[in-house]
Amino acid sequence: MKVLVVNGANLDLLGRRDPVQYGDLSLAKIENFLKEQFPEDDFYFFQSNVEGDIVGRLHEALEESFDGLIINPGGYAHTSVVIHDALELLKIPKIEVHLSNLASRESFRQVLITAAACDGYISGLKEKSYIAAAFTLHFLKTRR
Amino acid sequence: MKVLVVNGANLDLLGRRDPVQYGDLSLAKIENFLKEQFPEDDFYFFQSNVEGDIVGRLHEALEESFDGLIINPGGYAHTSVVIHDALELLKIPKIEVHLSNLASRESFRQVLITAAACDGYISGLKEKSYIAAAFTLHFLKTRR
Amino acid sequence: MKVLVVNGANLDLLGRRDPVQYGDLSLAKIENFLKEQFPEDDFYFFQSNVEGDIVGRLHEALEESFDGLIINPGGYAHTSVVIHDALELLKIPKIEVHLSNLASRESFRQVLITAAACDGYISGLKEKSYIAAAFTLHFLKTRR
Amino acid sequence: MKVLVVNGANLDLLGRRDPVQYGDLSLAKIENFLKEQFPEDDFYFFQSNVEGDIVGRLHEALEESFDGLIINPGGYAHTSVVIHDALELLKIPKIEVHLSNLASRESFRQVLITAAACDGYISGLKEKSYIAAAFTLHFLKTRR
Amino acid sequence: MKVLVVNGANLDLLGRRDPVQYGDLSLAKIENFLKEQFPEDDFYFFQSNVEGDIVGRLHEALEESFDGLIINPGGYAHTSVVIHDALELLKIPKIEVHLSNLASRESFRQVLITAAACDGYISGLKEKSYIAAAFTLHFLKTRR
Amino acid sequence: MKVLVVNGANLDLLGRRDPVQYGDLSLAKIENFLKEQFPEDDFYFFQSNVEGDIVGRLHEALEESFDGLIINPGGYAHTSVVIHDALELLKIPKIEVHLSNLASRESFRQVLITAAACDGYISGLKEKSYIAAAFTLHFLKTRR
Amino acid sequence: MKVLVVNGANLDLLGRRDPVQYGDLSLAKIENFLKEQFPEDDFYFFQSNVEGDIVGRLHEALEESFDGLIINPGGYAHTSVVIHDALELLKIPKIEVHLSNLASRESFRQVLITAAACDGYISGLKEKSYIAAAFTLHFLKTRR
Amino acid sequence: MKVLVVNGANLDLLGRRDPVQYGDLSLAKIENFLKEQFPEDDFYFFQSNVEGDIVGRLHEALEESFDGLIINPGGYAHTSVVIHDALELLKIPKIEVHLSNLASRESFRQVLITAAACDGYISGLKEKSYIAAAFTLHFLKTRR
Amino acid sequence: MKVLVVNGANLDLLGRRDPVQYGDLSLAKIENFLKEQFPEDDFYFFQSNVEGDIVGRLHEALEESFDGLIINPGGYAHTSVVIHDALELLKIPKIEVHLSNLASRESFRQVLITAAACDGYISGLKEKSYIAAAFTLHFLKTRR
Amino acid sequence: MKVLVVNGANLDLLGRRDPVQYGDLSLAKIENFLKEQFPEDDFYFFQSNVEGDIVGRLHEALEESFDGLIINPGGYAHTSVVIHDALELLKIPKIEVHLSNLASRESFRQVLITAAACDGYISGLKEKSYIAAAFTLHFLKTRR
Amino acid sequence: MKVLVVNGANLDLLGRRDPVQYGDLSLAKIENFLKEQFPEDDFYFFQSNVEGDIVGRLHEALEESFDGLIINPGGYAHTSVVIHDALELLKIPKIEVHLSNLASRESFRQVLITAAACDGYISGLKEKSYIAAAFTLHFLKTRR
Amino acid sequence: MKVLVVNGANLDLLGRRDPVQYGDLSLAKIENFLKEQFPEDDFYFFQSNVEGDIVGRLHEALEESFDGLIINPGGYAHTSVVIHDALELLKIPKIEVHLSNLASRESFRQVLITAAACDGYISGLKEKSYIAAAFTLHFLKTRR
Repeated sequence: MKVLVVNGANLDLLGRRDPVQYGDLSLAKIENFLKEQFPEDDFYFFQSNVEGDIVGRLHEALEESFDGLIINPGGYAHTSVVIHDALELLKIPKIEVHLSNLASRESFRQVLITAAACDGYISGLKEKSYIAAAFTLHFLKTRR
Repeated sequence: MKVLVVNGANLDLLGRRDPVQYGDLSLAKIENFLKEQFPEDDFYFFQSNVEGDIVGRLHEALEESFDGLIINPGGYAHTSVVIHDALELLKIPKIEVHLSNLASRESFRQVLITAAACDGYISGLKEKSYIAAAFTLHFLKTRR
Repeated sequence: MKVLVVNGANLDLLGRRDPVQYGDLSLAKIENFLKEQFPEDDFYFFQSNVEGDIVGRLHEALEESFDGLIINPGGYAHTSVVIHDALELLKIPKIEVHLSNLASRESFRQVLITAAACDGYISGLKEKSYIAAAFTLHFLKTRR
Repeated sequence: MKVLVVNGANLDLLGRRDPVQYGDLSLAKIENFLKEQFPEDDFYFFQSNVEGDIVGRLHEALEESFDGLIINPGGYAHTSVVIHDALELLKIPKIEVHLSNLASRESFRQVLITAAACDGYISGLKEKSYIAAAFTLHFLKTRR
Repeated sequence: MKVLVVNGANLDLLGRRDPVQYGDLSLAKIENFLKEQFPEDDFYFFQSNVEGDIVGRLHEALEESFDGLIINPGGYAHTSVVIHDALELLKIPKIEVHLSNLASRESFRQVLITAAACDGYISGLKEKSYIAAAFTLHFLKTRR
Repeated sequence: MKVLVVNGANLDLLGRRDPVQYGDLSLAKIENFLKEQFPEDDFYFFQSNVEGDIVGRLHEALEESFDGLIINPGGYAHTSVVIHDALELLKIPKIEVHLSNLASRESFRQVLITAAACDGYISGLKEKSYIAAAFTLHFLKTRR
Repeated sequence: MKVLVVNGANLDLLGRRDPVQYGDLSLAKIENFLKEQFPEDDFYFFQSNVEGDIVGRLHEALEESFDGLIINPGGYAHTSVVIHDALELLKIPKIEVHLSNLASRESFRQVLITAAACDGYISGLKEKSYIAAAFTLHFLKTRR
Repeated sequence: MKVLVVNGANLDLLGRRDPVQYGDLSLAKIENFLKEQFPEDDFYFFQSNVEGDIVGRLHEALEESFDGLIINPGGYAHTSVVIHDALELLKIPKIEVHLSNLASRESFRQVLITAAACDGYISGLKEKSYIAAAFTLHFLKTRR
Repeated sequence: MKVLVVNGANLDLLGRRDPVQYGDLSLAKIENFLKEQFPEDDFYFFQSNVEGDIVGRLHEALEESFDGLIINPGGYAHTSVVIHDALELLKIPKIEVHLSNLASRESFRQVLITAAACDGYISGLKEKSYIAAAFTLHFLKTRR
Repeated sequence: MKVLVVNGANLDLLGRRDPVQYGDLSLAKIENFLKEQFPEDDFYFFQSNVEGDIVGRLHEALEESFDGLIINPGGYAHTSVVIHDALELLKIPKIEVHLSNLASRESFRQVLITAAACDGYISGLKEKSYIAAAFTLHFLKTRR
Repeated sequence: MKVLVVNGANLDLLGRRDPVQYGDLSLAKIENFLKEQFPEDDFYFFQSNVEGDIVGRLHEALEESFDGLIINPGGYAHTSVVIHDALELLKIPKIEVHLSNLASRESFRQVLITAAACDGYISGLKEKSYIAAAFTLHFLKTRR
Repeated sequence: MKVLVVNGANLDLLGRRDPVQYGDLSLAKIENFLKEQFPEDDFYFFQSNVEGDIVGRLHEALEESFDGLIINPGGYAHTSVVIHDALELLKIPKIEVHLSNLASRESFRQVLITAAACDGYISGLKEKSYIAAAFTLHFLKTRR
């Protein structure tokens, strides 16, 4: 299975953010963790703090035959109409993930713009949000 | 692993609801599906259409040493302060699941009252929402 | 014609509520009134104060080949996502009725959640709301 | 029984509007339908696209001893304070009707200004909304 | 002094409306009252229930050299952008009057669209609202 | 006629405020203006910047047999529940006045708390707002 | 004095909830506490997690000649139109109590639906809220 | 090409309105301007200040085989549900135009009710809004 | 027990306000009533209509070793950030009381600013609100 | 005529987006279309998915003597304060274009931040929005 | 330089308030701190808990030729229209200061009424907010 | 003292923006001004129009041991969740500055997202906002 994993703003500094909200793993560790759990899959990792570059990466994916997308837009999840529109263009299974439980945080994190253009979303399971997303994609591919 | 799976209103009729939103499996099939995927685990299933009975089942769980909870409150997810308060009392890993992608549905489904009292939530992955939740619980127990 | 008549919370006490809003008939009298007006029809009456039991009754109706539903959800009309979802499942003519004229009452009675899942609704005609609903169902059956 | 039937904006073109929302009868057919169902009654039909002319017609009715009013204000139902005020002046039984089920349509159709000055309202029963209204008025007159 | 007095919807029926809100004088009596109090002035009275005709009357006034305008838009005060725009075109002293005290009535009467295009407004002094307005216009003309 | 004239915050500095909004008369000149226009009346003037002292003055008026009240609460008109409650206690004719046309100013000046406890209010006629108010009170006393 | 004490959802688990908000007594202890403080009174205790059963209990009370009602609806206080309507039917002194100080908690706990149908409410005095309510009822009965 | 050009309230007085917002051409000049620019087309001009008459004109157009509609509803653009509904009935290319740039004006001009029933809208290009609309209609007809 | 009792605006005129809302006792009678009920306690009464003087009195209390505070801020309860901040400084048991049942009154009385800085509040029990508050403070002191 | 044409996020993929909303032309085809229609003009095309790069391009334009700007900000139209501020700096004719009819789409597309800093905007005419914009600019240059 | 320093409600008790929000200096210490830092300036300090007295002090300042104003309205910053209006009258450099960072506190502290009538405001720098304000005023006077 | 000064969108063009709002200095002049006033300090200037690049610069600062941060996010201050999150990561004194007085500008500039993650903010003092910020940072370092 070939999976694109897109991480948005501030996720390059994961290990330094509040562990109560975000867990204590760095992004590199989460990436390794994914690879360990799903050794037969090919993960393509991309991280950017720039909203438009994330749009650009999603555009490129149109030509790359991925089996699925895992995206953590970070703070852009709540404001970005343009990432929403780019996701709509991409016709593969798409799962949005958030490390923290958005439902118990600030009100400006309750608005989900980008998730509406995905198949579903997972929030609050910390690094395991990624694992659960990959698991679900894997499942789609291999079993049903 | 001993897991309580609570399903709220209208989930007893899953197979008859709109498959575009909810998938085409009945609740019984989802339960079997869970058991097949995780044959070594013990699942305790509970379904009720009555808000207060769900509260009651969560209260009983306080004495039953579960390793985790998977709850799909159905429509109560958006209105029930009392299920929220019951979940707060239960100190085990708790994951809320929704079959449909709430972020792309009616505005009255954007308010998440009960999820704020869980560790996290999964929405839109249809019957695989349950699998992903169980997988995450399992992972917590067996690997880290 | 076989009609299910579902009454929600507080309607068991109709004759004791404010007659300016609700009229002065008890629920039993309204039921007799319906039977007198439509002596050839079979009415099945159900009343419950419990939201989930109303959901349950609607579920049972899926297997009972009714020609139509008259539902007065009482106060649940304004808050119940779960009755809304149960109504959506039931594919027969459905008319919601209210004794009082909701448009001239408190603002929390202006939100209509359950009516959106019916074919239509009738409000403010007191006990005649039921008669008008039955009449409409009858009409559907016998003349067109 | 002498009944005034007032139709507001765009109802002169009923048969050409979306049949899923409005049914497929023209206004003339609805009028005939009413007369067939209630052959002993006298219906006085009025239609105007002009808000102020509807107000004017309601003012005239003050001197005409009608037994009841059936009004479908069309789109004015959601915005017209002046029709609301004219209705308040008219002390006869008044029933507002809508062909479509407003509760499941655009948010700007959820505000009911004029219905608050009627005895009640009926929504979503298509041309049968008129029949149910006349039936209710008839009932008031002849039986109780 | 030459004064245009414009009355909007439902004011032709003043004497029949709720005297607690509107006083007990008919519009004709208010007009006579004005003429008695200010016998040397010329009042031009206009009443219409049609929003667009009020706009039309205000347009005509552009060519008629009035010393002032008294306008009671009735219910249009709260909704009419077009009367607002017509008032803006008319460069004479303009006073809006309301018989009832809007500040203590329904919330939909708290929005003042047309008054923002007048010099000022008077509310709640019943028929004396007109007298006070004429007095103020008179004052402007004769004393300062 | 014995009239209490209460002026609230910042009205002691009237002549120095923006003349486009407030006119160019000082409060003393407005007071003289009132006395000139109505030489046979007794005006009792009170001005305070302190919300509670205005409440206190209104309380005293309960024992002083005034024929009427003219009150310009200034900025307190938009926020003061306590002046509202004090006005409710005083059972004499009460007219609120504002020099500027509130309907065309900032949104925080659109909320009228205190006017709801008066008989009516006059806004935007600059110093003539007071004259029109006194005229109306006078009228009440002497002619009807 | 004969008093009905109704407790809603989650109050059966009081002693296990957050003591900073709710105090540290179990419901049984609160009940004993009430009986100790008012040994001559007869208290009838009822607790249910089911909204409709609370409605049902209030209906039964219509026939039972209580001197007063103390009700803690728990989370239903903020959402239940049906308990509100049931309370309106019951014509005895009614006091709503809350253990925690709602004014300093989540915004969804600021909406009070059921309290509007009581005589008054007491919030934040922990178990002493019940004592204060009983004391007030007692006072009503015995002294004035 | 046969084009209906409908102008709503206050547009008959265009040349007298604020030129910064509306440009300095009268409606007659705009009409001539259109005819000059598109000499081979047939324009049918209609202007009314009456909401219902605009509805009526749109109804007539149903039988008149126009190639397109240009409509400037004036202030009715922000409030008229009935013009919205009439536009929905008319199945020809429809472009709404506004002389001023609504996006930079009062908040009550940000709500666009009627434009939602057109193909598109043009705002802020003053008299050239009409030219651009005609150009677009022309283009549709002659080139593609 | 040494208790400070602070009353805010308009409470000096209690006996003259609407008895349905406020009861029929004057403030002096309520004070005597308190002393009669709790003859062994020392009550220190303070009343002011001035927001800032109430703040001042609360500041003085910092040096006066009271056992508790009963405060009825009157209308300031809904608007006063400064009384809220002063209450936060005072570290003794604090109970806010209201004579009327705020939950069933105007919407501007639903906002509770000051109560959030107290331990709890009592509303709607008329003069008995004070008794219940004193009783609760007494209870705290003497029994637990 | 020298025209800058700026396209924002996702417009590089136009031909692949929903043709009902956006038409079926690619951005390159729209550009060619523009050049064909206006062969004597010089168009400078710029597209970026990066909000800040669009700001940068607008800054450069300050030194480049364009006769006009056509900008389609894509999704940034609804959120970008910074593009708004950059447009304000650029003192040339500016027209915002949208392919789809925003007035009939999601509510988050009803907020127009950037259009307020343009002269006007055109929405819903698909690729012809650009032609109409260029036509208008051309007109400005060559005829008036 | 002659500077007026106005402090509003509760600032007299600064040293006793929460040091995380407000710092740990008393108002007297802040005043000394200001004098130490700017020994050549004349500071005139005023503190009051009474809204109207602050208005009064600002009025007096109109005659006192200050070079600048530093004002910390305390809680009045969020509600006082009357202090806003008084500040508007005073034509000297005016800087509002807040010890705490309002942007990260309760929502009722996000509304800034009085700051809109100042030149600018400084928030969150604790006692250094005053120093920064004086520094800025000084700078204005001595250097530019 | 080593200070990072970050400027966001459109600040590279400062000297060309409206001097009433922003002052008349270019960014370069502001930078020189800072260096002149604080000749012993080391300022590191960064400006970008790209939201994500500002995030990136803040990330780099984590490794660079600055003594403080001055940030003017420009328009991003009101919308950027991602800059907010990046600021939260940086544990040095942080002051947000704005040249214009946001409190008296458009409503979309009243929302402060990024300031909540700083220690404080300064608004409206034009170029002196930077000086005041540096002064405050300096003060922190050298005196206390």
